[in-house]
Amino acid sequence: MFKIFPIDGGVCASEGFFAHGVSVGLRGNENPDVAFIYSDTICEISALFTTNKFQAAPIKHFLNKGDFKSNFVLINAKNANAMTGQAGIDDIDELLGELVVKVPSAVNPVMSSTGVIGVRLPKDKIATAFDRFDLNSKDHDSAARAIMTTDAFKKEIAFKVVLEDGSSFHIGAMAKGAGMINPAMATMLCFITTDAVALKVDLDELLKELVHTTFNAISVDGDTSTNDTVMVLANGKSGSYDKDAFREALRMVMHNMAILMAKDGEGAKKLVAFEVKNAVSDREAEQAAKALSNSLLVKTAIFGEDPNWGRLASTIGASGIECSAETLVVTIGDIVVYDKGATVFDKECEIRAANVMKADEFRITCDIGLGKSNFTAYGCDLGYEYVKINADYRT
Amino acid sequence: MFKIFPIDGGVCASEGFFAHGVSVGLRGNENPDVAFIYSDTICEISALFTTNKFQAAPIKHFLNKGDFKSNFVLINAKNANAMTGQAGIDDIDELLGELVVKVPSAVNPVMSSTGVIGVRLPKDKIATAFDRFDLNSKDHDSAARAIMTTDAFKKEIAFKVVLEDGSSFHIGAMAKGAGMINPAMATMLCFITTDAVALKVDLDELLKELVHTTFNAISVDGDTSTNDTVMVLANGKSGSYDKDAFREALRMVMHNMAILMAKDGEGAKKLVAFEVKNAVSDREAEQAAKALSNSLLVKTAIFGEDPNWGRLASTIGASGIECSAETLVVTIGDIVVYDKGATVFDKECEIRAANVMKADEFRITCDIGLGKSNFTAYGCDLGYEYVKINADYRT
Repeated sequence: MFKIFPIDGGVCASEGFFAHGVSVGLRGNENPDVAFIYSDTICEISALFTTNKFQAAPIKHFLNKGDFKSNFVLINAKNANAMTGQAGIDDIDELLGELVVKVPSAVNPVMSSTGVIGVRLPKDKIATAFDRFDLNSKDHDSAARAIMTTDAFKKEIAFKVVLEDGSSFHIGAMAKGAGMINPAMATMLCFITTDAVALKVDLDELLKELVHTTFNAISVDGDTSTNDTVMVLANGKSGSYDKDAFREALRMVMHNMAILMAKDGEGAKKLVAFEVKNAVSDREAEQAAKALSNSLLVKTAIFGEDPNWGRLASTIGASGIECSAETLVVTIGDIVVYDKGATVFDKECEIRAANVMKADEFRITCDIGLGKSNFTAYGCDLGYEYVKINADYRT
Repeated sequence: MFKIFPIDGGVCASEGFFAHGVSVGLRGNENPDVAFIYSDTICEISALFTTNKFQAAPIKHFLNKGDFKSNFVLINAKNANAMTGQAGIDDIDELLGELVVKVPSAVNPVMSSTGVIGVRLPKDKIATAFDRFDLNSKDHDSAARAIMTTDAFKKEIAFKVVLEDGSSFHIGAMAKGAGMINPAMATMLCFITTDAVALKVDLDELLKELVHTTFNAISVDGDTSTNDTVMVLANGKSGSYDKDAFREALRMVMHNMAILMAKDGEGAKKLVAFEVKNAVSDREAEQAAKALSNSLLVKTAIFGEDPNWGRLASTIGASGIECSAETLVVTIGDIVVYDKGATVFDKECEIRAANVMKADEFRITCDIGLGKSNFTAYGCDLGYEYVKINADYRT
């Protein structure tokens, strides 16, 4: 068995990893906008990218490299370097060429970008960061802040994993992204570091396996940006590894980063887990859970703290899955608000369900009652004046 | 050949049709909330209903009747009679039973409802309307207002169709529904009357054919409410008919009603036609056009009058269709803002495109450049404080 403890340090919690964010003036203020992650030894590197057909230049650049190891990631905010054609890829080559001259320790550096689409990278400005990068810096905080765009808060996490044999390793991460209700170009970036002795084949396999119930559980099907990236670097410095322990730690990192993104919807105050149970297939469970988490109907009812189960049921009915009014059970927190057509939603039930919805975090469960497949999607309310009319619709 | 002229009169523009809306207190004010449409002779009747798995009781009631003719539609607002089980269907039987006693001219009456889900129909209140219905009334205005819920304005239209042989017929409609940006329970109802001698088989065929490019071009795939209904009644009183002329008139009625719904987004100021051209298949053209019209990214850019073509391109890329940055051309009005990767979006281009977007109605075209299939979806901007951050994202 193994134990997992939360620790501080973000991407610098893993041994041999360093990070730093500086301001080169891309934001028009003093806040950091360019960052690096650096390992003092070479790393296995694995990444998952957006399914958007118009993948941004940094993604194409990464994929063009084929199999490689690296120890340096350069990241900028405010410019996505997307829809910039071959020129955008050449810009990265030029910039990283300059980087390895200024920072000779950087081996096979890669780049990641987030921001506006269709504008060439401000290379000269970004390059001014290179002289100021402190490779001995463990300033994970400035790095996490440098990659923010519309994020309301920075997103970091780290764990220490202790194995049965007494050995241990670390895993840390930083991310940006403001959930699926963010109508700004909500690029999702997540960088994960670990000193575990993880093989590339394991990294590739586990990223693919875990993204499904973590980052993909908070995003709309197909509604991916041009730049979405999850990247993990493993330098093996701990000398320790166990695949099951690493899987669980990686899952916790990815789950927590995903949840923080879901929480960070603009104006959002509530984090809701939408659990669909007993659907006829995994695909249908996922489809219905995501329909709930993405429904404006549902989001505005949550904002209004209105236990409007009709909107939940209607969304299930519209989601295209197999379902029946005679087997459906809808629960808000632990309050059953619809039970296979029986009359349960009286005044007392309504008050109790509304009370559940006053909390910052709660769970809505739709038991389809026709199969054995479950999926939980995460979402938030939809706030601001925009929703006024809709939140008050039932009153 | 035939000619089609717009006329006044809504559903009462067709000979032999009468309508009236009264207030029975469902709204808590004096505004009409129950309406009828009546023909003094029996009608062919055809309807298309929601694909939501939880079809409301009035829809089940209609479908349970099998083939029938009718001359009376009873409509109420504020209560959808959905998720009410067999009791909801029994309520309709009871109410219509009472109706035919009070209004003996009503033959095989049907019912249609819109409003809150999961609450039993207020039968007693609705029944108080029956004594007050004036079957000689041509008050299409009060009927159109009675079926509104969150609609900002009533929706009516009518045409006179003159055939080559000098004969003519009429077609009229009223509708409710507030476009796909309306997160309230946006039930869409549309009632069409005609005195053309249209056979039921033609009505069935044409409704199915025309819904695709009209009502379905403004709605989210699968995001259907429990009550969505399009119904047409044909009493043949004009003695005139031509299938091609009738098809075109019906298309114009349905297109206009759909456009009015798209325009009636809460807080929306702009109606935008999203045209996708030269996709590889009809399905992909439709998929991409609807992805554009439903994208919060795109809607907020339109609200901000920001010619942010990156959001348009990214939405195309995320829509799942076959596309390439090397063949895509994006046009706002007649201003090309992205041309197969060539640099066209300079300051002057941006200003000209932004000028197009100042208009209340304009067209955005994405030419995929890979096939021959086209589809146009209709949508609107997304207004209110909610969008402030996003509309200003690029500045």
